[in-house]
Amino acid sequence: MKSNQKFKPCDLVIYGALGDLSTRKLLISLYRLEKSELIEPETRIIGIDRHALEEGGFVKVARKSLQSYLNETIDDEVWQRYSARMQYLMIDLTQLDQYKQLNSVIDSKSRVLVNYLAVAPFLFKNICQGLDKAKILTRESRVVMEKPIGNDLKSNREINDAVAEVFNEDQVFRIDHYLGKETVLNLLALRFANSIFTTNWNHNTIDHIQITVGEEVGIEGRWEYFDKTGQLRDMLQNHLLQILTFITMEPPASLEAESIHSEKIKVLKALRPITADNVEEVTVRGQYTAGYMKGQAVPGYTEEEGANKESTTESFVAVRVDIDNWRWAGVPIYLRTGKRMQNKRTEIVVYFKRLPHNIFKDSYRELPPNKLIIHLQPKEGVEIEMLNKVPGIGGSITLQQNKLDLSFSETFKNSPFFGGYERLILEAMRGDPTLFLSRQEIEQAWAWVDSIQDAWARRKIAPKPYSAGSWGPVASVALLARDGRAWEE
Amino acid sequence: MKSNQKFKPCDLVIYGALGDLSTRKLLISLYRLEKSELIEPETRIIGIDRHALEEGGFVKVARKSLQSYLNETIDDEVWQRYSARMQYLMIDLTQLDQYKQLNSVIDSKSRVLVNYLAVAPFLFKNICQGLDKAKILTRESRVVMEKPIGNDLKSNREINDAVAEVFNEDQVFRIDHYLGKETVLNLLALRFANSIFTTNWNHNTIDHIQITVGEEVGIEGRWEYFDKTGQLRDMLQNHLLQILTFITMEPPASLEAESIHSEKIKVLKALRPITADNVEEVTVRGQYTAGYMKGQAVPGYTEEEGANKESTTESFVAVRVDIDNWRWAGVPIYLRTGKRMQNKRTEIVVYFKRLPHNIFKDSYRELPPNKLIIHLQPKEGVEIEMLNKVPGIGGSITLQQNKLDLSFSETFKNSPFFGGYERLILEAMRGDPTLFLSRQEIEQAWAWVDSIQDAWARRKIAPKPYSAGSWGPVASVALLARDGRAWEE
Repeated sequence: MKSNQKFKPCDLVIYGALGDLSTRKLLISLYRLEKSELIEPETRIIGIDRHALEEGGFVKVARKSLQSYLNETIDDEVWQRYSARMQYLMIDLTQLDQYKQLNSVIDSKSRVLVNYLAVAPFLFKNICQGLDKAKILTRESRVVMEKPIGNDLKSNREINDAVAEVFNEDQVFRIDHYLGKETVLNLLALRFANSIFTTNWNHNTIDHIQITVGEEVGIEGRWEYFDKTGQLRDMLQNHLLQILTFITMEPPASLEAESIHSEKIKVLKALRPITADNVEEVTVRGQYTAGYMKGQAVPGYTEEEGANKESTTESFVAVRVDIDNWRWAGVPIYLRTGKRMQNKRTEIVVYFKRLPHNIFKDSYRELPPNKLIIHLQPKEGVEIEMLNKVPGIGGSITLQQNKLDLSFSETFKNSPFFGGYERLILEAMRGDPTLFLSRQEIEQAWAWVDSIQDAWARRKIAPKPYSAGSWGPVASVALLARDGRAWEE
Repeated sequence: MKSNQKFKPCDLVIYGALGDLSTRKLLISLYRLEKSELIEPETRIIGIDRHALEEGGFVKVARKSLQSYLNETIDDEVWQRYSARMQYLMIDLTQLDQYKQLNSVIDSKSRVLVNYLAVAPFLFKNICQGLDKAKILTRESRVVMEKPIGNDLKSNREINDAVAEVFNEDQVFRIDHYLGKETVLNLLALRFANSIFTTNWNHNTIDHIQITVGEEVGIEGRWEYFDKTGQLRDMLQNHLLQILTFITMEPPASLEAESIHSEKIKVLKALRPITADNVEEVTVRGQYTAGYMKGQAVPGYTEEEGANKESTTESFVAVRVDIDNWRWAGVPIYLRTGKRMQNKRTEIVVYFKRLPHNIFKDSYRELPPNKLIIHLQPKEGVEIEMLNKVPGIGGSITLQQNKLDLSFSETFKNSPFFGGYERLILEAMRGDPTLFLSRQEIEQAWAWVDSIQDAWARRKIAPKPYSAGSWGPVASVALLARDGRAWEE
């Protein structure tokens, strides 16, 4: 990752500027960056959408977004600077002729053109072609895209191919906003700056790892989109596999993008394939039924608005992943993610091996393992769970599990805390690809996930029901119980 | 260590019952044990001293001790139970005939006779002989002794021999009150119940260890005694070497006394001898000069009341210890202890090795090592110092050292916290020798320390001056600096 330095200003063009992603996330994040004076003074923000707006209409849209989603008072001075950067163009993105309007606005000499595709993926190809046709792209221009980048390896490749006709791979910035999270980045520090972990990080000392991404929300009015996708492709293919690569990759030679990307790809390539032969043993599909979230009744997945009652799409998935390399032989990584879980909770738990010999039998028949717990949501922080002697005299030594605690929000009270989007937009504007996904990486992840999806289809594995407000079907408990393990409570 | 069970009551006889150790420590600790209902109901406390007391005089002495040193209100009900246990006998301990008085008081059938020698060591032999002559001892009887048990190997052996004429080794309980401290015992849990440390605890991952016992006090009116002894023999021979054995011994097969004692002896035997050949490189002697303690002027060692101006006794000692065994080859243990140090501070710091490769060069030219810090005084607790990413975006990854903190007093707010004496008196009454020193152990420690003392004499090494209120002579800094290291601040 690059040191602080002077960066070239950008023309940041947001395609779909009036859409959800733009108004709920991007315009908010950009304001926050503005407030922290992280945007180059000459950078401009150009909104593009198919709707006609009155003069100054885009600025009004941005103002309204901030009022709805910023959660703090808008600072006048910041707003002045921010709104002065904005321009708007009406373009029907399906009409390639209309892109030439950009020529009147874009200044490719003194600014880098950064194209942020905040639109549905079917438009990606059009945008690339339109830009090409308008002859506005230079070798410096970039394109920023977000999931869903396709729905399987094939559709992902189609998008990547279309983009590759116009952009070189080093111009393409694929976002997974989990990679912008402080705690995910702190994994790099934790693993590679601390010898107590670095020397320990392998099958000799680690028993297994659990990664949980629990959502409280259900489908939230996007039933049709989600039903075509399912939790495996919507969450596990990207976020959970990304966390997995950060936690299991070999130490990179440096923090350069190439070095980190190549280690991540190696891990993805080492994932043991899940096929029709083993899919029943190592995966669990679930679909939520009606239940209670914090005391309130909520409908089941097939009872949601717009639902097809016969749907067999999973809203929960748990997978036992094996990594076939020297470091991780015999150390399963258990992933689970679901909607309508008991709590919103994202965490990584590294279970260290149990000690082979127990001299504290009087206190613990079996010593519990040490754990390293990395919280990503709702709070961010790191904990080590270890055993200490309970103070007291006159008996055997009594042990108790305690937590050595490093809560980020507590420890770093005075540091500004940025979300994933802020970080990634900034890095895209500055042109640092380290935290973005390479084509090879994303295709590798799709290939592995497609194999699971195919195996489910071939074996006709229907999702098992689980009550909204629980932690998924009992089969998920059994997945670990078969290995003599249990999910972290 | 033994589980909770019913124990046989004792006749706890305190020799020197009116002296300092008894009135400042033992009678206070016994009251605390009484309050926690840890003393067997039938146990009696018998004070012995050479002074005549009126009827009920010993009870009055105990009451006065509590008023001076207990730091809490005396509970009436507890006091009733406690004072009802007390008896007093006037015995001139040098007169062997007088011990037969004990026969009228001691009940060896239903109680275990526990002899607590709270007197100067020159009386130990008399007491043993007096008890023998009175024919009051049984195979169950015990003797409890405290430092100084001699002043060198020879005088230590003389005492041990005299005691051994009357008591078997398993009846002898030698106290080092540091071994009663919660945090020292927690070392057993830390090392042998936590796989993150157990698998790591050797020369592969540990760079070096520091043990500091800093005292604020000067000589406190016992100049003459101290001047014959010096800091090496008064503090390092016992407390620091005991901590060292707990932190470096091989994992014992069990918590049984024999198992732990044998591992401790093995470490002491593996200490590389310090002789006239290397004493100048690996030891530092210091003597404090006048200075300031927290702003207040204090006299130097040779200006204290009763001081001999020519004294060359050390009030500070620092030693680099090498342990010649497989686990610790190349891992020095640095010990330092002194009077009139800047703060009262007892701590162990385990420095892990630096990482061989640094991918965070932008943030740290050299990554600081991880540390495990074990505080014994003034607060008790455990900390791990590690590196985390500082939250923030838009530059290189910035690291910061943070502490994962487990403060015992915070964490175990609701557990009663006992001092070393309470624990050890209780264990002596219950007959568990685990936390006491075996003869072999103490002799081994003396042999090693004598060699240093002899080497100092042969090389005529005078102590280097250091200001009261500092952390010792600059030579102590140089001792570590030569190895490219520094004392923990």
